[in-house]
Amino acid sequence: MGKKKKLLLNLFDMNCVGHNSHGLWKHPDNERRQYNELGYWTDLAQLLEKGKFDALFLADVIGVYDVYKDTRDISVKNAVQVPANDPALIVPVMAHATKHLGFAVTVSTSYEHPFALSRRMSTLDHLTKGRVAWNIVTSYLPNAARNFGLDEMIKHDDRYEIAEEFLEVCYKLWEGSWEEGAVVFDQANDTYADPAKVHEIGHKGKHFQVAGPHLCEPSPQRTPVIYQAGSSVRGRTFAAKHAECVFVGGQTPEALRFYVEDIRSQAKAYGRNPEQILMFKGFSAIVAETSAEARDKFLDFEQYRSSEAALAQYCGSSGYDLSKLDPDQIFEYMSTEGNQTRAAQYTQFTKKRTVGEVKESIGKFGGGWMQVGTPIEIADEIERWIDEAGIDGLNFAQVVTPGTVKDFIDLVVPELQNRGRVKEEYEEGTYRQKLFGRGTSHLPNAHPAASYRQIAVPAVRR
Amino acid sequence: MGKKKKLLLNLFDMNCVGHNSHGLWKHPDNERRQYNELGYWTDLAQLLEKGKFDALFLADVIGVYDVYKDTRDISVKNAVQVPANDPALIVPVMAHATKHLGFAVTVSTSYEHPFALSRRMSTLDHLTKGRVAWNIVTSYLPNAARNFGLDEMIKHDDRYEIAEEFLEVCYKLWEGSWEEGAVVFDQANDTYADPAKVHEIGHKGKHFQVAGPHLCEPSPQRTPVIYQAGSSVRGRTFAAKHAECVFVGGQTPEALRFYVEDIRSQAKAYGRNPEQILMFKGFSAIVAETSAEARDKFLDFEQYRSSEAALAQYCGSSGYDLSKLDPDQIFEYMSTEGNQTRAAQYTQFTKKRTVGEVKESIGKFGGGWMQVGTPIEIADEIERWIDEAGIDGLNFAQVVTPGTVKDFIDLVVPELQNRGRVKEEYEEGTYRQKLFGRGTSHLPNAHPAASYRQIAVPAVRR
Repeated sequence: MGKKKKLLLNLFDMNCVGHNSHGLWKHPDNERRQYNELGYWTDLAQLLEKGKFDALFLADVIGVYDVYKDTRDISVKNAVQVPANDPALIVPVMAHATKHLGFAVTVSTSYEHPFALSRRMSTLDHLTKGRVAWNIVTSYLPNAARNFGLDEMIKHDDRYEIAEEFLEVCYKLWEGSWEEGAVVFDQANDTYADPAKVHEIGHKGKHFQVAGPHLCEPSPQRTPVIYQAGSSVRGRTFAAKHAECVFVGGQTPEALRFYVEDIRSQAKAYGRNPEQILMFKGFSAIVAETSAEARDKFLDFEQYRSSEAALAQYCGSSGYDLSKLDPDQIFEYMSTEGNQTRAAQYTQFTKKRTVGEVKESIGKFGGGWMQVGTPIEIADEIERWIDEAGIDGLNFAQVVTPGTVKDFIDLVVPELQNRGRVKEEYEEGTYRQKLFGRGTSHLPNAHPAASYRQIAVPAVRR
Repeated sequence: MGKKKKLLLNLFDMNCVGHNSHGLWKHPDNERRQYNELGYWTDLAQLLEKGKFDALFLADVIGVYDVYKDTRDISVKNAVQVPANDPALIVPVMAHATKHLGFAVTVSTSYEHPFALSRRMSTLDHLTKGRVAWNIVTSYLPNAARNFGLDEMIKHDDRYEIAEEFLEVCYKLWEGSWEEGAVVFDQANDTYADPAKVHEIGHKGKHFQVAGPHLCEPSPQRTPVIYQAGSSVRGRTFAAKHAECVFVGGQTPEALRFYVEDIRSQAKAYGRNPEQILMFKGFSAIVAETSAEARDKFLDFEQYRSSEAALAQYCGSSGYDLSKLDPDQIFEYMSTEGNQTRAAQYTQFTKKRTVGEVKESIGKFGGGWMQVGTPIEIADEIERWIDEAGIDGLNFAQVVTPGTVKDFIDLVVPELQNRGRVKEEYEEGTYRQKLFGRGTSHLPNAHPAASYRQIAVPAVRR
């Protein structure tokens, strides 16, 4: 049992009515309509902590899906991630209702400013006592670009170039601006913080100019735990350099292993410990005591499913309007924009499919990997993926909220605990300490952020 | 008693160690060091609700005060509004711990984007069930400009021009993008929201281009209650047009009445009901059962006061480095930048003072209007100001937290209740309903936001 790799559990969710199980907002057991209520979120957080989940992963978009059939009407009608509220604002109240649960918040580097974002993340890290992660995205929706003053989306690789500089600014503010020991709280000497240990950052780059100092004193983790979800070639390089947790795509264990190994080997080339990048796979499970009951549940859910809504999301995120393509043609996923994850998957690991077949397959619950069965069947399958694909954790998506995760917690988590795959108790400490079991809450020295720990910019010091 | 004007009570605070009572972070009764703790804020919110306060007003800055003596070292050493955490992130947890308290959050229109800010405010309004206000500022710190990529601050009047367009975008998103009744939650017809009642805004202005639609469904108040705090000529015009609550300056009842009447008469010219703009004055009180005890308290606090820190704040916000001026020269407050409030006050309502006299006067607790005395003395003085200056409420600043407001709640609020000046119970409803006693949570038709309720932009509709 000691040799078995422990599994990390995240809930994959979003501050909205319709996340990924399209049409299921109509199901009478689905409580997502209450996403505007604080109690809805505190109840969910407490449920997750009861189930020994490590974190709540909050996705986000800042535009509507309007590519499919050239309209956003399908998305609005079916609540396809619209309405969507700000994810960060629900975190502190959930932290107040729990003790251990972590929170991964998605924020785009394309439309926020690093000075403001750095302060928000530090504030969250303070308020949660170090239980915050940042899922870095560069945003893929054309409508998001138009909401932020751009006629066209910034090109995919340029978005990553901006993201690199954005992170550099954040690292300087988080890691370098306030030295350890800067806050002395020395009443006798009239000194809250030692000005000599607080530094301007004087960042002058291509995309950002930021003077500093950081407005927040050092938070427990300083830099929040870094998540990244892109699996394009550029995205994997970015992940290998920066990410501590990666939300990887891949429809088969082989595809997944390819990405996992690629990111780990690149991380090694950056001088990082490849084992300290944790890999998460999207997953969902419909579970019941018997296979027949599980199947019945699945069939019940199926009645509510909206393929049209799922297509709206797929086409919006990929950039392809499948309604305009011949159903019999082979679907060539060529985009260098949009979601390259799927592109790579289709070309490398999946047999060629027609547009019709792709459309048919879209809209399955759970983002492509869903198990329907008994606790033992589901635990078996999870263990197989962990071992074959080399993943570290699951981003668990729900069909109905909170029923799907409640079933998983009631039925599958105890089975995984019996197998030594899920912890019995939380470790103490910050989210980073829990994930990596190190003595420190801070990033390791091999992480690129560490190079900004010593900054002295006398020229801009006032 | 029925004729007596009720007084509105806000706590004037900030998500930081040192707000306006400089040096007092050192006082053993001051609990502000815990500003990073969620429980600190929920306790404060519950105390305010017990004291029948209407709202917690959260100030904010996004830079350090570095004008005085050409350094930010004094500010950092004395915690002069640095460190300063993000104010919005503490609101939901306080809303969860209370039922009636409102929350006024300061956000600058100079460094945020209206699309992102609109979503944050709508999210807050949803989560708090309509208890949110936005204190609109345009930011006065040069360091803030340098943190957001600008070498120099945008000129004062240009900042207001940007703010006007920023508000136009917000109004379109909040008031016009989602019609009443757009969200139907019609399971039988597969319709969460009626796409025909959700509109793009297609805003193309000088400073912003925003496509829309708004990402949030209509929140209880739609537009949050609008606060504004500038008292410059341009600021008053802005307030007269947009604000529902104004934080007015003025060191005497006469000065205050001048501003109040100026804003009200301008509001009337805009077609608004001038009585529906509520005027708040900064205030602080050191209260005890006897005058002698109150005086002792004051003298105890005085020992901790830092005039140097107060000067750092004053010079940073006004733009004048008083350390460089001859103490014997008359202080001419000429700036068209910086804080024009004081400029106007000094020239119109205050006898000319020397630089030395101004320096001497700076750093009084409570931002210039502080009472030290018994509950009766303080209640008398408050009533005099209400009637002479025509104000509607107080923004109460603390010397030590939460002791100063706790004393006020324990001793002065009951006295004001006896005089019919403070409510015995909260009204039901949203913050706007509580303030204006109307049947609706929405802005009145005479407010400029109302003109954006009907928008149809078919050209950009996809």
